[in-house]
Amino acid sequence: MADHPDYSRAYTLWRQASGEAWDLYARHAFVEGLKDGSLPKKAFLHYLVQDYVFLIHFSRAWALAVVKADSLEELKIASGTVNALVNFEMNLHVGICAEHGISEEQLFAAKEEFANLAYTRYVLDAGQHGDLADLLAALMPCVLGYGEIGERLGREAIEGTPYQPWIDTYAGEEFQAVCRDVGAMLDRAIAARLGEDFEASPRWDKLCERFTMATKLEAGFWDMGLAGAD
Amino acid sequence: MADHPDYSRAYTLWRQASGEAWDLYARHAFVEGLKDGSLPKKAFLHYLVQDYVFLIHFSRAWALAVVKADSLEELKIASGTVNALVNFEMNLHVGICAEHGISEEQLFAAKEEFANLAYTRYVLDAGQHGDLADLLAALMPCVLGYGEIGERLGREAIEGTPYQPWIDTYAGEEFQAVCRDVGAMLDRAIAARLGEDFEASPRWDKLCERFTMATKLEAGFWDMGLAGAD
Amino acid sequence: MADHPDYSRAYTLWRQASGEAWDLYARHAFVEGLKDGSLPKKAFLHYLVQDYVFLIHFSRAWALAVVKADSLEELKIASGTVNALVNFEMNLHVGICAEHGISEEQLFAAKEEFANLAYTRYVLDAGQHGDLADLLAALMPCVLGYGEIGERLGREAIEGTPYQPWIDTYAGEEFQAVCRDVGAMLDRAIAARLGEDFEASPRWDKLCERFTMATKLEAGFWDMGLAGAD
Amino acid sequence: MADHPDYSRAYTLWRQASGEAWDLYARHAFVEGLKDGSLPKKAFLHYLVQDYVFLIHFSRAWALAVVKADSLEELKIASGTVNALVNFEMNLHVGICAEHGISEEQLFAAKEEFANLAYTRYVLDAGQHGDLADLLAALMPCVLGYGEIGERLGREAIEGTPYQPWIDTYAGEEFQAVCRDVGAMLDRAIAARLGEDFEASPRWDKLCERFTMATKLEAGFWDMGLAGAD
Repeated sequence: MADHPDYSRAYTLWRQASGEAWDLYARHAFVEGLKDGSLPKKAFLHYLVQDYVFLIHFSRAWALAVVKADSLEELKIASGTVNALVNFEMNLHVGICAEHGISEEQLFAAKEEFANLAYTRYVLDAGQHGDLADLLAALMPCVLGYGEIGERLGREAIEGTPYQPWIDTYAGEEFQAVCRDVGAMLDRAIAARLGEDFEASPRWDKLCERFTMATKLEAGFWDMGLAGAD
Repeated sequence: MADHPDYSRAYTLWRQASGEAWDLYARHAFVEGLKDGSLPKKAFLHYLVQDYVFLIHFSRAWALAVVKADSLEELKIASGTVNALVNFEMNLHVGICAEHGISEEQLFAAKEEFANLAYTRYVLDAGQHGDLADLLAALMPCVLGYGEIGERLGREAIEGTPYQPWIDTYAGEEFQAVCRDVGAMLDRAIAARLGEDFEASPRWDKLCERFTMATKLEAGFWDMGLAGAD
Repeated sequence: MADHPDYSRAYTLWRQASGEAWDLYARHAFVEGLKDGSLPKKAFLHYLVQDYVFLIHFSRAWALAVVKADSLEELKIASGTVNALVNFEMNLHVGICAEHGISEEQLFAAKEEFANLAYTRYVLDAGQHGDLADLLAALMPCVLGYGEIGERLGREAIEGTPYQPWIDTYAGEEFQAVCRDVGAMLDRAIAARLGEDFEASPRWDKLCERFTMATKLEAGFWDMGLAGAD
Repeated sequence: MADHPDYSRAYTLWRQASGEAWDLYARHAFVEGLKDGSLPKKAFLHYLVQDYVFLIHFSRAWALAVVKADSLEELKIASGTVNALVNFEMNLHVGICAEHGISEEQLFAAKEEFANLAYTRYVLDAGQHGDLADLLAALMPCVLGYGEIGERLGREAIEGTPYQPWIDTYAGEEFQAVCRDVGAMLDRAIAARLGEDFEASPRWDKLCERFTMATKLEAGFWDMGLAGAD
C-alpha cells in the first residue's frame, strides 16, 4: 500500500526527489507530538499564533496564483482557496486560539518569527520570479503535506490526544477533498507548462529544488513551534 | 439630492476630479441604449463576450489586491470579491450568453480586443507599480461606476427594455451592498496610506489621474461594444 | 538570402507564426515613410514624444526581466538593457526632441495615448502573469523588430531622407550587436524553459500568441504616430 | 559630531526608530572582527560566498525598484544600481573569492542558507506588497548601513587587518557617493509619497517596522557568517 495519499503525480515525484527532507518535515517531532499527545501545550499555542500570521501571507501567495493562472480550472481552484483561507480558515484559528485564552488582538499583535517570514516570503517570491508552476512547487509542501500528515495522524493518533481537533481538521473529508482537487489541478498545470513527461523537461530539477526548499522551510516552522515551549 | 450613491468619500472626490470624463463613461450612448432599449442586440452581445474576457483579468487584478492588502478588512473584501467574480459572476455571463446562443467554447475562444486589453492591463500594472491605493484607484471606476449606473438605470429605465436583467443585476441590493462594503474599505485603505485629509497628500493628484485614466478606458470599452454592432 | 537578420531561432519562428501581422508592423506606412522621407514631420514628432513615455514603461518591463531572471546571462543582459534604456536611450530622445523644439518639460508632461499604454502594460503584465519566457515573447517585437527594420532601412532608405539619424541609430553596429546578444540570450532562455525543441512544448502556441499580440500593438503604435499628423 | 554619515533624513529617523537593533547589526561581532582582524578567515569566506548569492537576489530587488519608480530620478538611480550590482559588484566578489581559492563554479553551486534567503525574499516581497517607499525601507539597512559601517571602519580599523580591502570598498569615495545619491533620492521618494513631514504620515510606523525587520535580518546574516567558522 502507498505510504501517502495519491493526490497527484507531480506531488509524488517531488516528494521522492526531496529525499530525507520529506520525512524530516512530515514525521517531525512536532507532528509525532500531536499524534501521541506529548507535544507541550505551550509549543502548540506558539505554533498556532505564528500559523495565524502564516495564513495571512499564505493567502497572499494563493492570490498570486490567481494572478498567474492561465486556465479556468487554475483560476477557480486558486480563487476558491484564497477565499477559504481568508474567510474561513483564519476564523478557525481565531476560534481555537480563543479557547486557549489567546485573543484576536494578541494574534494580530503577534511578532512574526524569522522561520515564519522566511517560508512565506520564499513562496511569494517563487511566484514573482517564475510562473504558476514555480509557485505551485513552493505551495504544495504545505497544502498536500498537511493533507498527508492529517491522513496519517487520523489513522495513527492515540486515543485521547488533546490535539484530536487539529488532526480532525486535516484528516477530515473536506480538507482531503481540497487536496485531491488541488492535486488534479496541479498535474494539469504542470503538464500544460512542462509537457506530460514532467521529468524530461529542463525545468524539472528546478521545480524539485523549489519543492525541497519549501519542505525544509516547513520543517523549520515545526522547529520554531517546538522552540516556543522553552 | 445627490446625483450618485454615497458609496465612499474617495470615490466622490475622484469622480469630481475626473471632470467630463465621468459622464462620458457613466452616461455613454451604450448605457443610454441599455436604458431605453435602443442598444442593438449585436452590440450588447459583442460587449458581453468581451466582458467575459474582461472578468478573467479583472479577477486577476482583484487577486493582486489580496497580495497587496495590509489590513484584515482589505484582505477579506478583496478575497471575497475574487471568489465572487470567478466562481459566480463569470458563470452568470456563461448563462446569459448561452441564452443568446453563444456557447462557453465561443466565450473562451473570444479574441480580446485592444480596448479590453488596454483597460485590464492598465489596472494590473497600477498594482504592480504602486501599492493598494494605486490599484484601488484603477479598480473603482468599474466596480462603483457599475453600481452608480445600475442604480440610476434601475430608476430611469423604460419599461420593456430588453436589458432589464442586466440592469437588475447591478441595481439589485446584492450588488449595491458590495459597492457599499467596497466603498467603506476604500475610504479606510486610502486614509491608512494618505491620512484622513486625502486631498492634502502629495499622492492625491496621481490617484486622481489613475481614476480618470481608468474611467476613460471604461468609456473606450463601451465604444468597443457599440462598434461591435457594425 | 534571408529576409531578416539571424538574431535568434525563437525570433525567426515567432515572426513566421505571426503571419501577416509581422509585415503590417515591419513594413507599416510609418516605416516606409521614414525610408523614403515622405513621413510628415508632425507625425514623426508625435511618435517621438509618445516613444519617450513608452521608454519609461519599456524600461520597467526590462527591469521586470531582471526580477524574473534565472541564469547569470539573463541577469546581465537584462540589467545592462535597463541601464542603457534609462541612462542613455532616453537622453537620446531628449536630445532629438530638443532639436525639434520640444523641451524635456513637454516630454514629461506628454499625455500617454491609449495605443501606447495598451502596449507597455500588456508587456508588463506578460511578466507578472508568467515567467521570463512569457515576458521575452512580449518584449521581442520591439527590440528585435526595430533591429530588423533598422537593418533594412539602412540598406533601402533613399538618400536625403530627413530620418537618416533615426535609421542610423537602429541600423548601426551598436544596436545590431545588442540585438544579437539579446537574441542569443533569448534562445538559451527559451531552451532552458521549453527544451531545445521549442515547438514541441505545450507552451509554444501561447508564446506565439504573445509575440503576435505584441506585434499588433507595435503596429498600433505606428498608427498612432501617423494619426498625430492629422 | 554625528555618529553616522548624513546620507538622508529618512535613514536617520529609521535608524533611531530601530533602537538597539541598529547597533546589534552595525556593531555586530562580525563587523568588529573585520575591524580588528580577529574574524576567522573561514567565517569571512563563508560570508563572501553567501553574499554572492545575496547579490543576485538583491539585484532583483533593486530591479523591482525600477518597476515601481515614479520619477525620473527614481528610475535613473535604481537602474544604475541594478547595473552596478550585476555587471560590477558581482564580478568583484568573483575576484575576491578567486584570491581565496573559491572558484566561480563553487559560488554558483553555493547552497543558499535560510538567513540569506529570509532576508532577500523579505525585501522582494516588501516591493510586491507595497510601493517604492515600502521597498526602499527594506533596502536601506543594507545599502546605507554598509556605507555607515564602511565609513566607521575606515576610521577605526587597526593597521594590518587582513580585511582592509573589504573595508576600503565600502569606505571608499565611490561607495560613499552612491550612499549620498541613494539617500537624496530616498528622501525625495518618501516625501513624494508621505509628505514632507514624514513622521506625521499614517504609513510612518509601518515603514519603521520594515526598516527594523530588515536590520534584524542583516544581523542574522552576520550571525550566519560567524557560524560558518564552526
